[in-house]
Amino acid sequence: MITTANIKNGVNVDQLVETIGAVQTNPELAKFQFRAKNNWIDGGHCVSNIKGFYGVGAEDQSRQETFSLECSHPQVLLGQDEAPTPPEVVLHALSSCLTGAMVYHAAANGIDIESAESNIKGGVDLHGFLGLDPEVRMGFDGIKFTLKVKSDASAEQLEQLAKFSPVFDMITNPTPVSIEIVKE
Amino acid sequence: MITTANIKNGVNVDQLVETIGAVQTNPELAKFQFRAKNNWIDGGHCVSNIKGFYGVGAEDQSRQETFSLECSHPQVLLGQDEAPTPPEVVLHALSSCLTGAMVYHAAANGIDIESAESNIKGGVDLHGFLGLDPEVRMGFDGIKFTLKVKSDASAEQLEQLAKFSPVFDMITNPTPVSIEIVKE
Repeated sequence: MITTANIKNGVNVDQLVETIGAVQTNPELAKFQFRAKNNWIDGGHCVSNIKGFYGVGAEDQSRQETFSLECSHPQVLLGQDEAPTPPEVVLHALSSCLTGAMVYHAAANGIDIESAESNIKGGVDLHGFLGLDPEVRMGFDGIKFTLKVKSDASAEQLEQLAKFSPVFDMITNPTPVSIEIVKE
Repeated sequence: MITTANIKNGVNVDQLVETIGAVQTNPELAKFQFRAKNNWIDGGHCVSNIKGFYGVGAEDQSRQETFSLECSHPQVLLGQDEAPTPPEVVLHALSSCLTGAMVYHAAANGIDIESAESNIKGGVDLHGFLGLDPEVRMGFDGIKFTLKVKSDASAEQLEQLAKFSPVFDMITNPTPVSIEIVKE
């Protein structure tokens, strides 16, 4: 008998089932830690390097590449527009994570996803960031995500699958952030 | 008299003061909308394109480049590791935003920042994402940000300035996200 990998939506379902089994046997394998190193360039222009992470009970040895990402600001926000702003980068992470979560959970449930593309937008009032009005928040007052999907599953079911997204959880629910400033 | 731009920490302070004055005169100028378009490639691999935004009372015409960013997953998370994961991208956005907010508000307050670099890490337990334990959240259970700064200001003052960060607000406080799934 010739066996082939059981791939759905680009996800290796056999490996996914194995992963779930491994985590059920040894819960410690589910603990991950992700990291970034960030360097300030000038103004609102920064660069992050991302490589190492901890997961599956050990420090990762598989990732070969260091990913380098920048943030900057357009001229109206006093920058030189070398890269997207941090809030735009959040929209990228959130839309990718909602889509990926839907795709993985669809694969686990035997649902085909033929295509998926989305638009995401967030509004912000600079009175918050500029410190001009303490009633106005610094971040987005709301985010609207519109996802077009080709699939036999219902929109309601796909939405439930997307909501397994870790970034969706981080944005919609409070995530504690500790800040330590070290003077050099 | 020869006048030179009043630049501090790479921030044009004259332009910053003008921006604050313009917003105080016409509050509508403070309303921004940021956007991304996201396309699913396969599995947990997506690409976002970021260009247009609304701000200062009009659709932006200044940005020339379309920024293209990817997300993917390492092999232990069933991907091919073409790009950082969405949670890692959030760490990039958050560290850049905390740093940029500190730098801008330091400039506005006459505080020099000589250098700034940071490490950021977030822990996550996959029991949440995998749907194995409803008590475990999908997102980071906490984020630790450590920033080394060369500046005459105190660590306490610098921390207060960093906390003007819009992404810090979005992560630490709930941000509503509406999801619309359109079947094609």
